Amino acid sequence: MADALFGRVAIVGVGLIGSSIARAARRAGLVGTIAASDADAAVRARVRELGFVDEVTETSAEAAEGADLVIVCTPIGACGAVAAEVGPRLKPGAILSDVGSVKGAVISVMAPHVPPHAHFVPAHPIAGTENSGPDAGFAELFDGRWAIVVETPGSDPQAVAKVRAFWEGLGAKTDTMTAEHHDLVFAIVSHVPHLIAYNIVGTAADLEDVTQSEVIKYSASGFRDFTRIAASDPTMWRDVFLNNRDAVLQMLGRFVEDLTALQRAIRWGEGDKLFDLFTRTRAIRRDIIEQGQDTAAPDFGRRSAPPAGE
Amino acid sequence: MADALFGRVAIVGVGLIGSSIARAARRAGLVGTIAASDADAAVRARVRELGFVDEVTETSAEAAEGADLVIVCTPIGACGAVAAEVGPRLKPGAILSDVGSVKGAVISVMAPHVPPHAHFVPAHPIAGTENSGPDAGFAELFDGRWAIVVETPGSDPQAVAKVRAFWEGLGAKTDTMTAEHHDLVFAIVSHVPHLIAYNIVGTAADLEDVTQSEVIKYSASGFRDFTRIAASDPTMWRDVFLNNRDAVLQMLGRFVEDLTALQRAIRWGEGDKLFDLFTRTRAIRRDIIEQGQDTAAPDFGRRSAPPAGE
Repeated sequence: MADALFGRVAIVGVGLIGSSIARAARRAGLVGTIAASDADAAVRARVRELGFVDEVTETSAEAAEGADLVIVCTPIGACGAVAAEVGPRLKPGAILSDVGSVKGAVISVMAPHVPPHAHFVPAHPIAGTENSGPDAGFAELFDGRWAIVVETPGSDPQAVAKVRAFWEGLGAKTDTMTAEHHDLVFAIVSHVPHLIAYNIVGTAADLEDVTQSEVIKYSASGFRDFTRIAASDPTMWRDVFLNNRDAVLQMLGRFVEDLTALQRAIRWGEGDKLFDLFTRTRAIRRDIIEQGQDTAAPDFGRRSAPPAGE
Repeated sequence: MADALFGRVAIVGVGLIGSSIARAARRAGLVGTIAASDADAAVRARVRELGFVDEVTETSAEAAEGADLVIVCTPIGACGAVAAEVGPRLKPGAILSDVGSVKGAVISVMAPHVPPHAHFVPAHPIAGTENSGPDAGFAELFDGRWAIVVETPGSDPQAVAKVRAFWEGLGAKTDTMTAEHHDLVFAIVSHVPHLIAYNIVGTAADLEDVTQSEVIKYSASGFRDFTRIAASDPTMWRDVFLNNRDAVLQMLGRFVEDLTALQRAIRWGEGDKLFDLFTRTRAIRRDIIEQGQDTAAPDFGRRSAPPAGE
């Protein structure tokens, strides 16, 4: 395996993302050996069965032993404890990385455990589905998606370049950003959207005048789109909101301010204001499709959409 | 065509819904002749080219002449004017119907124009895509979806039964409901979800700290799901909010109340409250999939999802 970027890679936490990294790394022949650990014994057993890694260890310390790259793919809330465990095992020149959706808080709990002879290069792949666990992962998850690599003060340019090359080998396009800017961008493009999706699904479930069975039956009229996102992993998302509090509250404030203006426009029958917004938002969808970040097929190409070729 | 439910059907307004009705009715051999009219000359010309109706007329009055069923498929704001135009042309026993997403306000402006010798049976198919116009329609749009047929005081049971049979022939399942309850149900499963989707897309577009190009690049992290809905027809949706004001404001009040509680939980670090909600909402997604109202494929089965068979 002459092209391997890393000899031994350790994946700590083998859910949707961790298992997709292993599968994509294998597909590309990017690494020599893949070791994996998970806090959950049932997950470890399942990963052994699925057979997409070379070695499954009970502790993250064992997986990290001798590794050239250790990627922490646990929920954010566990990142500090994992760094404390693997930090002392990192060999000279080893790189510690992660995939967390929040960067500032994660860096502050992980960085102190990285010894001077190793490198810390935080990252965040912008990919996922609403499903969780090692069965949910697949090799193509990162194809054509973005992966953000964060440069921290004093980070080693060669280590950063290797992590970028790794993500590009997994199929992603890469970009760099400061942790602070990252957390603001993802508060609006990811965290607040997830929060309002969870919220509308909760609101609909709690009504007295409309039954839950009606909500489910008639969900194709808009509601069902929100339920996909609101089916995402609860632990992961709890940790995101607890760890990106300030940016989420800031963006949520903007969202509510704008929503209040819309509410007022509805109350006072200001059709022009509604029409203007509804026209502007169409253009953004067009740009997203043109840049290959979503499918152009109506209804996301679901079964209810036009048959292929029509 | 011995099985035709209606001899002549007039479709007024040939957009996504009107053109899909024509295509689905033709597929099922449900009707003898289909006449269509549209206020927009370009749409009339395109419908002639596409050839899925027998007759394209300039006015709705001409289309309605001699029709057994007239279905108004214009934006809600035009329903009253169309009813005023076609009402006097309705022959004895003819049925006037519509497809509006709001029922109370639409009934109040249409009903007065229906002569005593004709019947008024409002309806609302729960189907659509984010695309608009006669090219966006397709025969399969209503397959397996619900169509609500509204019984109004004094409505003729036989006319209601014929409209239900028509929608079932188009591929839909049917249900009846009062107009008042309909408007409450759809405020929460459709109107408020559309409003918050339009709103978050607008908020993201207006930020100073995050560029529009970043919003588009990283939209796969959640945001893009909202942009599909926020690409829906602006005229149609303006009219929905103006015509279902009370129910929308009521449901929006509940949504904001719940969102404020979530905001507070984030501010005070109450992880348990977040986790409980995020777990409850998963179950609702499961029910929607089990009842065939959405696809179980991750990511709605988009290109970034696992390849078939994996």
